Amino acid sequence: MNKKIILRDDEMPKQWYNVTPDIPNGLLPPLDPETKQPMGPEKLGAVFPMGLLEQEMSSERFIDIPEEVQEILKIWRPSPLVRATNLEKALGTKAKIFFKNEGVSPVGSHKANSAVAQAYYNKREGVKRLTTETGAGQWGSALSFATSKFGIECKVYMVRVSFDQKPYRKSMMNTYGAEIVASPSPDTNTGRRILAQYPDTPGSLGIAISEALEDAATRDDTKYALGSVLNHVVLHQSIIGLESKKQMEIAGAYPDVIIGCCGGGSNFAGMACPWIPDYLEGKKIKFVGVEPASCPSLTMGKLAYDFGDVAQTTPLLYMYTLGHDFIPPGIHAGGLRYHGMSPIVSAMVRENIIEPIKVHQLECFEAGVLFAKTEGIIPAPETCHAIRGAIIEATKDLNDPKTILFNFSGHGLIDMASYDKFYAGELHNYDYPEEEIAKSMANLPKI
Amino acid sequence: MNKKIILRDDEMPKQWYNVTPDIPNGLLPPLDPETKQPMGPEKLGAVFPMGLLEQEMSSERFIDIPEEVQEILKIWRPSPLVRATNLEKALGTKAKIFFKNEGVSPVGSHKANSAVAQAYYNKREGVKRLTTETGAGQWGSALSFATSKFGIECKVYMVRVSFDQKPYRKSMMNTYGAEIVASPSPDTNTGRRILAQYPDTPGSLGIAISEALEDAATRDDTKYALGSVLNHVVLHQSIIGLESKKQMEIAGAYPDVIIGCCGGGSNFAGMACPWIPDYLEGKKIKFVGVEPASCPSLTMGKLAYDFGDVAQTTPLLYMYTLGHDFIPPGIHAGGLRYHGMSPIVSAMVRENIIEPIKVHQLECFEAGVLFAKTEGIIPAPETCHAIRGAIIEATKDLNDPKTILFNFSGHGLIDMASYDKFYAGELHNYDYPEEEIAKSMANLPKI
Repeated sequence: MNKKIILRDDEMPKQWYNVTPDIPNGLLPPLDPETKQPMGPEKLGAVFPMGLLEQEMSSERFIDIPEEVQEILKIWRPSPLVRATNLEKALGTKAKIFFKNEGVSPVGSHKANSAVAQAYYNKREGVKRLTTETGAGQWGSALSFATSKFGIECKVYMVRVSFDQKPYRKSMMNTYGAEIVASPSPDTNTGRRILAQYPDTPGSLGIAISEALEDAATRDDTKYALGSVLNHVVLHQSIIGLESKKQMEIAGAYPDVIIGCCGGGSNFAGMACPWIPDYLEGKKIKFVGVEPASCPSLTMGKLAYDFGDVAQTTPLLYMYTLGHDFIPPGIHAGGLRYHGMSPIVSAMVRENIIEPIKVHQLECFEAGVLFAKTEGIIPAPETCHAIRGAIIEATKDLNDPKTILFNFSGHGLIDMASYDKFYAGELHNYDYPEEEIAKSMANLPKI
Repeated sequence: MNKKIILRDDEMPKQWYNVTPDIPNGLLPPLDPETKQPMGPEKLGAVFPMGLLEQEMSSERFIDIPEEVQEILKIWRPSPLVRATNLEKALGTKAKIFFKNEGVSPVGSHKANSAVAQAYYNKREGVKRLTTETGAGQWGSALSFATSKFGIECKVYMVRVSFDQKPYRKSMMNTYGAEIVASPSPDTNTGRRILAQYPDTPGSLGIAISEALEDAATRDDTKYALGSVLNHVVLHQSIIGLESKKQMEIAGAYPDVIIGCCGGGSNFAGMACPWIPDYLEGKKIKFVGVEPASCPSLTMGKLAYDFGDVAQTTPLLYMYTLGHDFIPPGIHAGGLRYHGMSPIVSAMVRENIIEPIKVHQLECFEAGVLFAKTEGIIPAPETCHAIRGAIIEATKDLNDPKTILFNFSGHGLIDMASYDKFYAGELHNYDYPEEEIAKSMANLPKI
C-alpha cells in the first residue's frame, strides 16, 4: 500500500459541507450582548461581510467553494493523507493510524483554509482592510497570507508576549505585507486605556480581540476576521474531512475513531463534521476531541451563553465555556488556550456524538517527539494533543486492529521554542482546580 | 490545467541517475592531500562507508534506490511540481514557470534526500555514529532526521555564530535526538587549539568540517557525512530531476531553461543532471546555475585542485574554487557561502553545458518576497537566488513563451531572521573584489 494517499488538484472538493442542519436538536442562535435577543445579520454586518454571515446562518448542507478560493487552496491542497506506519511499529499496536497532514500549507497549518475564504468574501464586498488578533501567531500569519493574495490590507493585533517571543511569526506576516502591532497598542481606545493602567502588561487574546473589533467597527473600509469558533470557519475547514473521506476510501479503510485537538474547535470540526452523516446513518465512529487539562472547556466547563472575549463586546455564543474571564495558566506552551469552544463542537458534545478528553502537556510533547522520530515531521504543540489522543486509542488494546484517523493540524517548525522549554524542564502539567473554574463560571452573563 | 503535478508514492523513481559517465571529457579523480596521487576507496574508507564510496566512483548510469531508503523518502516524496501561475501574472510574462517544491520535506529542504541515503549505507555497514558539520543548519537537521530513522547516533558540529543565532535549527536537531555542539568545541584537538588561541571566534564551516572529520577518524564506530559537493550526494539528489521529468511530461511541457541556486552544487545538479542525456541527444536546454556575487566560485573562481576545508585535511577535489582560505563576507545572509563547487557541476561549467550567473542578495530577497506574495510560500534565502534567476529569464522578453523550470530547494520558515535583516536594511550587496580573490587563489595547492 502507498504510505501517502494523495489527490490531484481536480479531485479537490468543489463544495464545503455545512453540518448545522444535521446536528440533532440544532444550534441556538447568537445573542445581542445588549438586548440578549437573537442577533441577525444586520448588526453583525458592521464587522463581517454578508457572504460570511450567510454562511454563518445557512441551513444548506453543501455550499459551493468559489473558483477563486479553489485556485488559491490548490497551492497546497488537496493535502496528503498519510499512514503512520512507523508510529504504529514503535507503539507495537495492531491499530492502523492515519493522519491528514494540514502542515503542508504555506503557513504550516490548517488555518489557511478559512483565511483564504474569508479574504475572498471580504474582497468581493469591497472591503479594503481586515483586522484580526493573533495569539500564537498561526491565524495571524494565515490571514496575512490570504489577504496578500487578494490585495487587501491586513492589520494584526498580536498579543504582546507573543510579539516579543515569536519573532519568526512576525517576520512571516511582514513578508506577506501585513501590519503587525503588539497588543495592547496605542492605536485603539481599549489599547490606550489598558496601557495607561498597566504599561507592562503582557497582553491577552481577549484584549487583542477587543482592539481588532474596535478598529473594524470604527472604520468604513475595514472588517474583522476570526480564525476559529464560528460556524463559517468550521464550514471552510470541512474541506479537511471531505478530502479525508475520499482518501480513506482509496486506502480501503474506514475510521473507527476520529481524533483532533480542540482549542476553538475548527480543526477538529473540519475533520469530524463530514463524517457526521455516516454516523447518523448508523456507522460506528467514535469522535474524540482532545483538550489540554490546563484549559478544559469541554470536560470541566459548562454549556451556556457567554462572551467570546474578556471585554464582553462580542455576541453571546451558546457554547462550552470556562467563563469569559478565565485566564489559562502561563505554564502551558501550546495554543488551545481559549475559554470557550465552537458552538458546533459544543452541540455535538451535548448530543454525546463527540467524546471530549483532557490530556497533560508533558505527555503531549513526549508524543510529539515520538512522532518526529518515527514519522519525521515535528508537530505543532497543539497538534501534539491530537497525536497523544491517537496514541491513547492505539495502545488501549495493542491487539485491536481498529482504524484511527487524526487531524495533523500543523507542523512545529515555527514554534520550536516550546520544545526547548520542554527539553529544559520548564513546562509542567497543570490541572485547573475546580474552585478556580467555579470562580470564572460565576461571572457568566445572566440570560 | 492542474496547478500542481503530483505523483503517487508508487510512481517515485526506483533508481538514481549517475551523470558521471555522461559528462563529456569526464571527471578528474580526487587526490590524496599528502601524496597528490589519485585516492582510492581504501583510504577514504576511514571516514566513509564502502556503499557510498562505490557510488562516489561508480560509472553505472542507474543505481537502485534501496527499498528501506524509498520507504523513508515516501514520507514526503514524490514532491510536487507546481506551475507558478501567480508569479507569471505578476511579472506580466508569457513564459511558463514551473518549480519543483523540495520544501515539503520534514526538515524543509532537499538536503533530506541525501541524508536518508547516507544514513542507510552507514547503518548497513554497522556504523553506530555519524558526525557532520552544519553552517546554516539545513544539512545538520536533515542528517539528524535521517539518523533518527535508522537508530544511528549523530553529532553535529554547528558553526558557533549559527549555534547562537539559529536556536530553532538546534531545537530541531535536538528533537530528532542528535548531539549538537558549537564549533570550535572543546571536544576535538582542532577545536581546543583554536579556542585556546581565539576564545571568542564565531567559528567557520572550515573549522567545523575539520572537527567532524577528526572525530570520525579517531573513533572506530564513527563515520563522517557531507551534505553537498561529492558525487554520491549529487547522485542521491538526482531524484529531484527524475521526478521532474515525469511531471513535466504529465504537464505537457518541456523546459527551455533549467535553473537552480549553487552553493556546493547538489540541489542544482540534482535537478539538472537527469536532463543531461536529453541535452546530449540534441535537445536545446539552457542550464543556469545561480550563485551569489559575494561568493562567486563559478563566475570568478578557477578550475583547479583544491582542499574542501580551511585546515587542508580533505582530499583534493578538481573544482571551481575561490581558494580554500577564502572567507565569504558576513553581510551575506543566505547559505551558498562555500569556496568550492561540486566537481560534477564544475565539469559541466567547463564543458559549457551549464551557464553560471551571479546575482546580488538584495534582488534575491526582493524576488523571495514577490514569490511569497504570489505563490504563497516563503523561500529560504538560498532558494531566493534560484527564483531571482527564474525572474531574470522570464522577463528578458516578456513575449517569449519559453518554459522555465527551477528547483525550489527549501522554504524559509526556519530562517526568517534573514528576512528581518533584509527589512531592517542590514543586508547589502557585495561584489567580491578581484584583487581579494587573487589573494586566496594564490594559496591553491601546487599539483
